[in-house]
Order: sequence, then C-alpha cells, then structure tokens
Amino acid sequence: MTKLVELLKTTQSEKLNTLKLGFEAQVLTVTLNRPNARNAMNMTMVDELLEVFAAIEDDANIRAVILRGAAANFCAGGDIKDMSQARQAVSEDSQAFYRLNRRFGELITRVNACPVVVVAVLEGAVLGGGFGLACVSDVAICHRKAQFGLPESGLGIPPAQIAAFVVQRIGLTQARRLALLGTRFNGAEAYRLGLVHFVCDDDEAVERKLRDTLAELRSCAPNANRVTKKIIQAVGHQPLEQLLDEAAEAFSQAVQSDEGVEGTTAFVGKRLPEWAKAGDA
Amino acid sequence: MTKLVELLKTTQSEKLNTLKLGFEAQVLTVTLNRPNARNAMNMTMVDELLEVFAAIEDDANIRAVILRGAAANFCAGGDIKDMSQARQAVSEDSQAFYRLNRRFGELITRVNACPVVVVAVLEGAVLGGGFGLACVSDVAICHRKAQFGLPESGLGIPPAQIAAFVVQRIGLTQARRLALLGTRFNGAEAYRLGLVHFVCDDDEAVERKLRDTLAELRSCAPNANRVTKKIIQAVGHQPLEQLLDEAAEAFSQAVQSDEGVEGTTAFVGKRLPEWAKAGDA
Amino acid sequence: MTKLVELLKTTQSEKLNTLKLGFEAQVLTVTLNRPNARNAMNMTMVDELLEVFAAIEDDANIRAVILRGAAANFCAGGDIKDMSQARQAVSEDSQAFYRLNRRFGELITRVNACPVVVVAVLEGAVLGGGFGLACVSDVAICHRKAQFGLPESGLGIPPAQIAAFVVQRIGLTQARRLALLGTRFNGAEAYRLGLVHFVCDDDEAVERKLRDTLAELRSCAPNANRVTKKIIQAVGHQPLEQLLDEAAEAFSQAVQSDEGVEGTTAFVGKRLPEWAKAGDA
Repeated sequence: MTKLVELLKTTQSEKLNTLKLGFEAQVLTVTLNRPNARNAMNMTMVDELLEVFAAIEDDANIRAVILRGAAANFCAGGDIKDMSQARQAVSEDSQAFYRLNRRFGELITRVNACPVVVVAVLEGAVLGGGFGLACVSDVAICHRKAQFGLPESGLGIPPAQIAAFVVQRIGLTQARRLALLGTRFNGAEAYRLGLVHFVCDDDEAVERKLRDTLAELRSCAPNANRVTKKIIQAVGHQPLEQLLDEAAEAFSQAVQSDEGVEGTTAFVGKRLPEWAKAGDA
Repeated sequence: MTKLVELLKTTQSEKLNTLKLGFEAQVLTVTLNRPNARNAMNMTMVDELLEVFAAIEDDANIRAVILRGAAANFCAGGDIKDMSQARQAVSEDSQAFYRLNRRFGELITRVNACPVVVVAVLEGAVLGGGFGLACVSDVAICHRKAQFGLPESGLGIPPAQIAAFVVQRIGLTQARRLALLGTRFNGAEAYRLGLVHFVCDDDEAVERKLRDTLAELRSCAPNANRVTKKIIQAVGHQPLEQLLDEAAEAFSQAVQSDEGVEGTTAFVGKRLPEWAKAGDA
Repeated sequence: MTKLVELLKTTQSEKLNTLKLGFEAQVLTVTLNRPNARNAMNMTMVDELLEVFAAIEDDANIRAVILRGAAANFCAGGDIKDMSQARQAVSEDSQAFYRLNRRFGELITRVNACPVVVVAVLEGAVLGGGFGLACVSDVAICHRKAQFGLPESGLGIPPAQIAAFVVQRIGLTQARRLALLGTRFNGAEAYRLGLVHFVCDDDEAVERKLRDTLAELRSCAPNANRVTKKIIQAVGHQPLEQLLDEAAEAFSQAVQSDEGVEGTTAFVGKRLPEWAKAGDA
C-alpha cells in the first residue's frame, strides 16, 4: 500500500470530516458520511473527495473504488447551507456562487476520469449532485427502492455541472425530459433508462452483487484496465483516426509489458494470470 | 400574455392556414391542421411553424409548447405536391429542391432549440418529417397504435435533414437500421427504442398523461428550465471544460435571480414556490 | 455483376484462404472461414476482408453484404498465433504490434463506412475483434445462445481499436462496464443492450429473420440508401449546420436522379418502384 493511502487510512479520523475510508484487497471504499443530511455534499465533502481521488491517481496498487453513502442513502445533492453561506459571501465576493458550483464540476470530472474502476452503490436518495456522481461510475449497482431525480429546476436553478454527464450517461432524449420535469424515479426505472447496470431487490442482494462485481473485476489486468478506461474516455473528444493511432500505440506497449506477457502466457497455458489471484489485503 | 402571442391568438383564422393555436395557463398548443393530408408538411406549414417558434423565443410568458396533429394523426411527412412543384420550378431555379429541403432543416433545428419545453403528442402517422419533429421534443407521449417510420429511401431519397436528429434521439445503432430498411413500427416499439417517453393504450390515457406532464412541469422554475435546456443542448457541441465554465456562470446568475431566491426560500420554508401555483390563463 | 465481384467469385478458392464468398440477388455473403479457430481473425483474414470491402466500394450492383461465420461461430477475436509471431518480429521491427493492431482498426473503420447495408449474423462466439465487427453492422441478427464479450483486459491488453465502436454502438455507460469487467453475455442481453436488433431462438429463426431483412431492404432504393448511410455516418463528425447543408445538397441530387423520379412516380401511381422487384442473381 502506498504512503498516501496509508496516510488516508491511518489518519482518516482526524483528517476527514465527511468521509469514511476503507481499504481491503486493493479496493478502496469511500463512504459519504453525513448521514443526518442524507450525505448531502457540502464544500468540505467536495474538497475531501477531490483529495481522495487525487491520491488514487498516484497509487498503482488500487484496482477499484467503491463509492457509497452512510446509513442507506447515497447522496441527496448539494448542501443548502452552503448555498446560504455563499449568498452572504457574494456581497464581498461576486464569484462565490460560480466557484461553489464549478468546484463540484471539478470533482465530477475527476471521478469520471479516475484511472481505476469506480463502482457506485446506490441506495436511498440519489439526487442532484448525487445523481451526477452516479453518472460517472463504471459500474452502478442500485437498490430497487433508491430514489433518483434532478430537483434543481424546482429550486429555481439549473443542474449546471451535472447536465453534461447525465447526457453522456443516458442520452439526450431522457436527459432533457428528466431535467426539465424534475421527475423522481426508482431503481427499476433507473435500470430501464440504462443509468445503472444492476438493480437489486434488497440490501443483501446489493452486497452480493457488489462482491460478484469485484470478483469479476479481479480477472481483468490492473494496468490494461487503466489503459482501456483512458481510451474509452477519449471517445468523442478527439478525431477517430487520431484516437485509433494512439490506441494502437497503447496496445503495443501493453502487449509488451509484464502484464501482456503474463496474460497471453497464462491463456496459452490455461492457467489464471497472476492478477486474477487474491490481492493483498 | 405578450403582444405577439396575442396577435397569433386573435388573428390565427386569417393568418395561419395550416396550424391551429391555443393558449391556456402559459401553455401554447400548436396543432398541425391539414387533416385530409394526414397533416403532411407543405412549405406553408413549415413557414408558419417557423413563425410561431420565432414568436415563442421572444415571449417570456410561455412555459411549454404542445405540438400535435389534427384528427388523430401527428404528421405524415413532407407533402408530395410540394415535391412536384419544386420539380417544375427547378428548370428555372436549380436550387429549388435544396431550399425546400434545407428550410425544413431550419425548422427542426429551431424546434430543437426552442427555449421552453416542447411536448409532442404522437398519434396515427409519425413519418418522415413528422418523425423528425418528434425527435426534437423534450417530452414525447404516444398512442400505442401510432405508426412510426422513415419511408424516404423507399421513395428514392435520403432522410436528409432528419438523420442527424434521429441519431441524437435513439443512437446510431437503431438509426442506421431504421433509415436503411424503412421499417414501420408502433408506439410500443417506439417506447422500447427510447424514441418516446410514454406509450398510452388509448386516447384518454394520452390526454391524461399530457395533463400529468404539464402538472409536473409546473413545479419547475420557468427561467431555470430555459437555462437548463440551453446547457443540455450545448453538450457535445463545445469542449466539456468550456461548457462547465459557462454552466457555472449560468448557475451563479440563476441562484441570485428572483427565481433562485424564491426557490431556496420556498424549499427551506417547506412551501410551494410561486411558479408551482396555477398559472394565468 | 462487375468484373471485381466476378473475379472474387470465380477465383475465390485460389485467392481467398480465410473467407468464403457467395453472391445472389445483389447480396454478397462473406463467411469468415477458419472454423477450427472459431473464425479468429489472423492477419490473412484481415487483409482479405479489407480486399473484399474495397471491392464492394467500387461495385454499384451490390445492395447488401451479409457478414457471418462458418460452423455456427461468428468470430472469437484476434488470433493468438499472430500475437506470438509479432512478439518474435518485434525485436527486428519495433512497430510490429502497432501495425498488427492498427491494421484491424482499418478494417473495422472500412466496414463501418461500407456504402451498402451490412447485415451481421451473430452465432456462437462474438468476442473481442468479432464483437468489434458486430458493432459496425447496420442490421445485427443474433442467436439467443451467442456468446458476447470483450476478453482483452483479461489477457493484459486493451480493446484498443474496438473501444470507440463499442461506445458508438451501445453508449459510454455500458461500454465502460463491459470493457472493464470482461463480462460474457448472451443474445438476449445483447438485445437488451441495443447491441443487436433482433434475437432469435434457434437457427431456423435466424435464417428466417435474415430473409425478412433482405426482403425489407429490397423496398429501399440502392443509391438513396448509400446517400443515407453516408449522412448518418457523418453525424457527430462535423458541425451540424454544415452537415445539414451537405445533406440538402445530397437530397437535391437524389430527388432529381432516376431513382428519385422513379420513387415519387411509383408512389403517386401506387405501384412498386423498379428496385423493389426481384434483383438479378
């Protein structure tokens, strides 16, 4: 385990006010931990999440991040008190609201680009900013009774930093309807819309699906997954031919790396590759 | 009500040959009204629709547009007689077909960018250009027996101005199949493909869903919805970071506007915001 | 039939080592033919497919290509032996892996842009590169028991040339999950994900759906379909206004062509257009 994760692990009680962290078998669990506010994101939480995801980027030993919320809620959105504080601050600092909003966009962009697999466990409230975070996960597992929605316009504001990620997640057609009507919907509908990958009938099924997902993930090579995620994230953001050229370069490097040799050797030898065995805890 | 809408309302019998307009509780109903031609779009209808949607853009009092067709059809596509006329005109004006086609593209682009929520009610024929119009609605409600399809290639022509909006609506995968085979399908399949948001079993269910949609819409702030729609429409048409910067600016303005103050105050006070009460008729 | 197709037809036994070709009623059938390797693609197959698809581009008489595999498998992906050869060659030629991979990207790009309708018949293994090929078909028909998956990362390599086409096919949300977990799934799930258009319960149903598809295709004008496919492929790769301008130009040409005249005349005369009658075999 790297120094930074060690640090986060040992000092979290002092250092992190709004998150709980756990690390086991190369998987980091990040729990949004403001249960009394249904884990609504205040500025402290946004800053702490940014710090954690920055740390992940420097850590070659992490293979997945589980993002979930304490006490059976994922995240109820942005914290209303922050809004009130910004309202007071704005007389002195005209950019207070801009920065409050843009900072959350930084977070969601960073989670989207997180080099390792992000698994979201979605229970209870998945609203506004929480909805946005769910939209940048690689695997989304939800409880059938989870409550999804974009309530922003009902509060007189746009889902500004979220809209782009909602469109990428479920397409323009559903995004425009959900954002403009503020519709609430449950996990079964989230599955139908392709917002989540799995819908589970109860808590136990959620945990079982999470374990199965991590087991499945273990068969994929850690670095190949990082390279794969980078290529996938680039689709649509650069010309296709350039993307394919760079992807071929990445392929060439991967296949000649230790992983590439181990992977093809294991395949021919009909054995499990090293990375598919149990990781260190 | 603004002058322009007033004008449209009072003079529609003289002024509009192919449309019926209605205005109630901040909602404009535009009915394609060539029932004998299953509301096929001729040049007059395209011009009149362009005029109406231009008027909407200048009117701060409208919250939604309902787009539907007279006599249980939505729209059977482009009018074949216009095609014949253009065929005669083209000897004198080589651009006649180009302009006929491009003008329809202007309309569909304008409806797509319409600043207020566009609700399409889809019954009977939803073909060709009618299919295209359906693809730029924010909320699409259809009758189970509606008939959808892109018949263009069967007539020896491409769905030229429509193709891009079909791809945006239902994705490349289904768009290429439907355009290249000319498949007809009903409302249930349209729902499965994500072309429409709701499929209803009979006329009464269609009207009920329309009422429910307008009631749901009423909870969303009019200007926040305009800002939201603008952000959503920009996704994919500019670099992400720039989009997020501009969206944060829009957020900052919205939250400090009358609506933003009313919305958060109402939320904290656990009461309905002003805009959620019954609108003026 | 053109010279080139004639050539391919008469000389295929000498000329093509990994493919079988058939031509009937303006439809070319290309069968991947390495049944002992579940039709895995080696460099020879990639080269031969590139040659065949280049020939199609020059042939005005072809209306559709059926792409399928011998002996109840579509394609198990890239050939592992090629990989071993490249591994030996790379000491002398550092670009060996790059070219091996990039060449497959050329193929998939070419099939995607194929001017005529590509129908994929998906049975048995549809893995890796085979999965990628399936993603660029215009119509995909699959057997319920077909096995889909992206096994690359499990081998320590990224699905480099495929990723972009998977994202275009089924969206970012499902693409990231499937690529990062290496999940295997069957035809029913492929249908739910929108990867294929039809799922069939048995071999007979597959063949029947294929015949129905070709019959449906016959009602669409050959050149109008080429123009339509070109427009659809351009969506998202150029600014919308430019796309619509060019599409209007293409419309103007199409409507004034023999096909455009025949199509509208037949429509008005309530008869089948010429192209909807049985093609020459």
